[in-house]
Amino acid sequence: MASDSPKQHWSTAEEEIMEATYRALLKHGYADLSISRIADELDKSKAAIYYHYDTKDDLLVAFLEFAVDRFEETIETETGDEPPEDLEHVIEKLLPLQPDEEQRQLQAVLVGLRSQAVTNEVFREQFTQIDERLAATVRSIVERGIDDDTFRDVDPSRVAEHILATVNGAMYGRVTTDRKSAAAAARVSLASYIDSELRCRS
Amino acid sequence: MASDSPKQHWSTAEEEIMEATYRALLKHGYADLSISRIADELDKSKAAIYYHYDTKDDLLVAFLEFAVDRFEETIETETGDEPPEDLEHVIEKLLPLQPDEEQRQLQAVLVGLRSQAVTNEVFREQFTQIDERLAATVRSIVERGIDDDTFRDVDPSRVAEHILATVNGAMYGRVTTDRKSAAAAARVSLASYIDSELRCRS
Repeated sequence: MASDSPKQHWSTAEEEIMEATYRALLKHGYADLSISRIADELDKSKAAIYYHYDTKDDLLVAFLEFAVDRFEETIETETGDEPPEDLEHVIEKLLPLQPDEEQRQLQAVLVGLRSQAVTNEVFREQFTQIDERLAATVRSIVERGIDDDTFRDVDPSRVAEHILATVNGAMYGRVTTDRKSAAAAARVSLASYIDSELRCRS
Repeated sequence: MASDSPKQHWSTAEEEIMEATYRALLKHGYADLSISRIADELDKSKAAIYYHYDTKDDLLVAFLEFAVDRFEETIETETGDEPPEDLEHVIEKLLPLQPDEEQRQLQAVLVGLRSQAVTNEVFREQFTQIDERLAATVRSIVERGIDDDTFRDVDPSRVAEHILATVNGAMYGRVTTDRKSAAAAARVSLASYIDSELRCRS
């Protein structure tokens, strides 16, 4: 949808490994993840995983791509032709106003993985692609809104980067502090920004 | 200024250790920091450091507090009675539009330290305080602007959390991706938000 790159095709075996990785990450966190623990979730041997991925880092980089593929597929299904509602929906998916336990753990896992990108080039390239794809998803909704006159003639790239930075920063704060209401406050202000800065009054 | 907590007083010896920690962090990064390397920068023995701080984590938590103390002192000196310019100044300090090498390295160090807060309670408490203090600094400028009628009657807490999340998220993206212009685009959009959403037109 938002990306020009060809859609990654995941084999059934790879998808099963990715699902097992997701469960293992939620259960053990990023720091305590091992191929053994993923194999336990998969109910197969470690060799079955190493047949597809040479190292744990290879597997985790693939997992991040899998997660973004899934995210884009969901967004494609769940958004339609109402740019303001579609934008709100993407923001809620990225930064739930009231995250449940699974969403909280996933966010902690993502912050752990992203911290590797400070020093690890392969993780850095993957997070570069992730942010590119997420920004493109937001941008395409803003462009759609400008085309159908629900949004003003703003700069879609800048607005997309602003929204992505706010969402990433609020999520980052939620995972690394005990400030319970800060992320929700940022989201409410972001929604009011979208309402006042983007929406046309007809 | 922005915080109600009593100002931390740093002895000369502590300040020297903090300055040495800063230099060692810029030189070696967070991952390769050791008490030995800080002692080298200090030109004293490791014992001189352990006399003040029991562990490396104790020292790093103190360093974070020292950095925020310094930041607040600078802001107090460099801001005045022009809320829009003061706000722009704080944002530029937190997220330089064109960071130099030292600022880039410092941001990488801060992301490395913050990632510890996902699992380490002491770091988590410290980053909770840091974000509280930064949000309070932004909030007090917004409140000042509302009081002197340069800003509209917005919710200062929500706006402060929005600005802090955008700044943190853009900085986080800058350090963990190769997306060169994303942070600047977010900042330009944030400035336009402040201009259109906050400023009164008289």
